Amino acid sequence: MEKVSILHLITAASNASPFDVNMAFDAGFDKLMPYTSVGLDEISALTQDAIFSRSPSGVKREALFFGGRDISLAVDMQEMAKKAMFDPFSVSTMTDPSGAFTTSGALIAKISQHLAHTHDALSKQTIAIFGASGAVGSTSALIVAAQGAKAQLVAHGDVGEMQKHADMLKKKYGCKFEVVAGASDEDKIKLLQTATVAITAAPTGVRVLEAKHYQDSSSLKVVADVNAVSPSGIDGVDAQFDGNKVGNTTILGIGALSIGQLKYVTQQKLLQQMLLGEKPVHLDYNHAFKIACDHS
Amino acid sequence: MEKVSILHLITAASNASPFDVNMAFDAGFDKLMPYTSVGLDEISALTQDAIFSRSPSGVKREALFFGGRDISLAVDMQEMAKKAMFDPFSVSTMTDPSGAFTTSGALIAKISQHLAHTHDALSKQTIAIFGASGAVGSTSALIVAAQGAKAQLVAHGDVGEMQKHADMLKKKYGCKFEVVAGASDEDKIKLLQTATVAITAAPTGVRVLEAKHYQDSSSLKVVADVNAVSPSGIDGVDAQFDGNKVGNTTILGIGALSIGQLKYVTQQKLLQQMLLGEKPVHLDYNHAFKIACDHS
Amino acid sequence: MEKVSILHLITAASNASPFDVNMAFDAGFDKLMPYTSVGLDEISALTQDAIFSRSPSGVKREALFFGGRDISLAVDMQEMAKKAMFDPFSVSTMTDPSGAFTTSGALIAKISQHLAHTHDALSKQTIAIFGASGAVGSTSALIVAAQGAKAQLVAHGDVGEMQKHADMLKKKYGCKFEVVAGASDEDKIKLLQTATVAITAAPTGVRVLEAKHYQDSSSLKVVADVNAVSPSGIDGVDAQFDGNKVGNTTILGIGALSIGQLKYVTQQKLLQQMLLGEKPVHLDYNHAFKIACDHS
Repeated sequence: MEKVSILHLITAASNASPFDVNMAFDAGFDKLMPYTSVGLDEISALTQDAIFSRSPSGVKREALFFGGRDISLAVDMQEMAKKAMFDPFSVSTMTDPSGAFTTSGALIAKISQHLAHTHDALSKQTIAIFGASGAVGSTSALIVAAQGAKAQLVAHGDVGEMQKHADMLKKKYGCKFEVVAGASDEDKIKLLQTATVAITAAPTGVRVLEAKHYQDSSSLKVVADVNAVSPSGIDGVDAQFDGNKVGNTTILGIGALSIGQLKYVTQQKLLQQMLLGEKPVHLDYNHAFKIACDHS
Repeated sequence: MEKVSILHLITAASNASPFDVNMAFDAGFDKLMPYTSVGLDEISALTQDAIFSRSPSGVKREALFFGGRDISLAVDMQEMAKKAMFDPFSVSTMTDPSGAFTTSGALIAKISQHLAHTHDALSKQTIAIFGASGAVGSTSALIVAAQGAKAQLVAHGDVGEMQKHADMLKKKYGCKFEVVAGASDEDKIKLLQTATVAITAAPTGVRVLEAKHYQDSSSLKVVADVNAVSPSGIDGVDAQFDGNKVGNTTILGIGALSIGQLKYVTQQKLLQQMLLGEKPVHLDYNHAFKIACDHS
Repeated sequence: MEKVSILHLITAASNASPFDVNMAFDAGFDKLMPYTSVGLDEISALTQDAIFSRSPSGVKREALFFGGRDISLAVDMQEMAKKAMFDPFSVSTMTDPSGAFTTSGALIAKISQHLAHTHDALSKQTIAIFGASGAVGSTSALIVAAQGAKAQLVAHGDVGEMQKHADMLKKKYGCKFEVVAGASDEDKIKLLQTATVAITAAPTGVRVLEAKHYQDSSSLKVVADVNAVSPSGIDGVDAQFDGNKVGNTTILGIGALSIGQLKYVTQQKLLQQMLLGEKPVHLDYNHAFKIACDHS
């Protein structure tokens, strides 16, 4: 008889995310167990406990999920877990802290899809990212940089602080980012005169871009906003937008619900991948982006 | 295929209650997930994570349960959760901190049932509540006050402290309560000369009422005790009592096991209500009382 | 319809062990619920919550598992839980902190099995235990002492500290232990000239015994090591050893994987025992040893 499928939900936060819980059950996992307030130094022992307690046929029906709010910590946890495994005692792993990896994957896939309508490519873009120090902003920067685009981290406050964040990302992930000032109206107008894509991933309730910031831009092709709660991050971009024209401009807008629907599919497919294969898979934002492209 | 049913068990305490866990599984929930040491400020995010991760057909198979030990906090959590929902992304909720809502609902339903045998009504009673600062005592006061009865919160210590508690309940729930002194034998004898019903909801192991306190009362009709562990809270009231006469008096006694059996049924029915309906329901002590009346 | 089977996983540690989680699901429990950072003073209330929420037919399909890292605390929790039960509201319990009870049971059963090949008995042995202050070392000492063997707790550091540990074990479990010095090469060589069995249960990565320590012993018959990660605790004892001769000696070696396989079977059988019987069972290291003997 086939073993029950078990997902161990590991997080540095004090509780699991109900989002991940629902998604994991709906993706077909029979059983979940939460591990909370987990430190990086506990990952090896947790992993070995998870792999040495099932037969080789059992570990195929088992996976580790790393959540939490800190993307670097979640990535480190996944790396640590992979190092603690020994074939054939190896289970699939997936990282999606705060849902940022699947959200970013879906966001960038949507942008790529709408650029493709005019035979344009992600790799040729200059992409201004607002909210770049957050989980979705940072991950989006990593994905577009890996695709060869020019990623601009927009500082809404002190440029030096954002530069530190860019340096950290560069050191950890080996990608290079430009930091641009974006605190004032003048800053925003100026940077959108060269950016071809703008992403707003600011906290809920923050209106990042007004019409005056982007309406006279001759470079902007696509703008995308991940904020599902009113007001949207970009004036004129409705949550339902899926490549709709923004106001009287020719800029294509992508709203939070369009991104959210693709994020949902992406997370579900990733979770299911951990159960379907003969060999364990280790999934992160790169896989999220790829899956999102396949389903957008 | 029907989605699995998921109950998110949310508590301010450091762990879920095994009572609620067993009841929820036996009521038919397929999956439970505990969220512990949760603060009121985390409820909106948890709720939105819970609703935005399932389709409209999925949210019908999902509910939030608020436990913990603090009835006001649990009620506030439920209110906060309801405010965080947007149709059609809305799930059922239920509040039952320390089981106090279902216990109180069953307790008052039992009293009402035995009063009805003599065509008497709850609304006409003067109800002395011992242990009134506790979860069951406070909730019982809220239920009987809402039914139009005169609720007396008996102070076993400082009357001023109980008055503060009464003021808090009044401010929060809009019900009015009388505070009466009940520390000494004389106090108890005196207040039971006008009370028509007495409830003891003191901590386990405290004998609240002796025979000398109630045996000469000409007003008392029903006494009820929620303490299942010996000694009972009222001398002469056995845990099995279900309207039996107390000692040589004509007072009807209700014991903890009779209340407990109805509490069990009440909690089960409430949990099942969250799964059965087409529309989400939001259940608290008022619903517990109503369901308990239907099944007593 | 049969009630779902529920295992309440109770631990003083901050999370459940994925090992226990996997084992419990694979043993056939339908549902698990973790209770973490639990104190001894919470056990009575948790237990009564667990038993009073199911019917007598329900409690047969329910059990409590005490994990954590501290064997004395786990044993105390189990005792406390048993005292909080009232027939017929009684559920099965099992204690296996850090897997130490099932590991020790399997370890000693393996030693007993290989002694039996030469018609030798555990009760006649002098058993030197390295790592005796740890969970597996301490439990192994308790098991062999209960079988009538002479258990020697080897002090790798201060002898006085190990004597305190021996005194604690004696006071709590009523068994008597000898404490021997084992810090230096000379100490080890000397004590292995009278010991007939040596057990190494030191932390991972510590090479406890070199060939020079045991190769000239005329008393040693069996050596066993519980450390699955290289280097093994005893030079010349491979993790796969199951009674193989160590180096050029006639000493029989038992390695960590042989012990681990029997530990796995032992834990599974114990978990299943809690579900199969009509009457509740309360399982600890004694039952683990017995089951391990039956399956070795």
